[in-house]
Amino acid sequence: MLDGAGCVFCAIADESEPSSDVYRDDALVCFLSNAPVNPGHALIIPRQHASSLSDLDADVGAALFKLALRIQAALRGSGLACEAVNLFLADGEAASQLVPHVHLHVIPRFAGDSFGLNSRGGVTTWEHMPPREELDANAAIVRSAYQRLWTGLL
Amino acid sequence: MLDGAGCVFCAIADESEPSSDVYRDDALVCFLSNAPVNPGHALIIPRQHASSLSDLDADVGAALFKLALRIQAALRGSGLACEAVNLFLADGEAASQLVPHVHLHVIPRFAGDSFGLNSRGGVTTWEHMPPREELDANAAIVRSAYQRLWTGLL
Repeated sequence: MLDGAGCVFCAIADESEPSSDVYRDDALVCFLSNAPVNPGHALIIPRQHASSLSDLDADVGAALFKLALRIQAALRGSGLACEAVNLFLADGEAASQLVPHVHLHVIPRFAGDSFGLNSRGGVTTWEHMPPREELDANAAIVRSAYQRLWTGLL
Repeated sequence: MLDGAGCVFCAIADESEPSSDVYRDDALVCFLSNAPVNPGHALIIPRQHASSLSDLDADVGAALFKLALRIQAALRGSGLACEAVNLFLADGEAASQLVPHVHLHVIPRFAGDSFGLNSRGGVTTWEHMPPREELDANAAIVRSAYQRLWTGLL
């Protein structure tokens, strides 16, 4: 879906589908999730269709993150229950991306809510600590791929 | 911890603590998590201490997100298991922030791994769909806070 035909978030961007909007500008739209994990759970999308992060213009991504900083501050100042915030983005089916149009979740959190992470069989803190040698080896692999892809940016 | 005294991520930034580095520049450091949910799980931090998103310089945030785009591409091209990617950021204790220095997780994902979201009592898809009136009312609350905080940006 490169052109966004049939994409529900493109339809929200062009206002042919209803949305509960927080913010709109020429490049971005912020609206509340139809399936919020907590009240005020917001999504930020680029207007221009991008299925995945790999298709997203970097400057639009930068603007999207700047908007996320403003939205999280608004959530904290809104009076809705918001002691803390999670930013979450799922890119690809194996990462639980449901709508193939880039969207950043901005999720208000409070003590005792029902949202969280599930890793290592339900252990919500991350307790697997590999030896330094293993981390260094993996870092070298990723660093090498980074340098191959983005030479000149180092 | 406004100045970063005693902060482990500040110590990684100034290289007084070991880290398995993927990338460094004047403003940002990317290194592998000591407690990865999957191999290659990376963290991106600003060098300048910022406990929370509310303290983060917006331009540094923008650069951080641009780096995340490059890192996710590197993970996908690295040969490590990476069919998909999650970006995750915990801001505040109620959002599971463990180290009070802003850090964005870039998490490689693959089918059958053990990572995921836990919401609504273990239901990992988000199935609570409030009526439009409730979403519109919450959007109006957040929009009002946004306008109060960021007037002039609309």
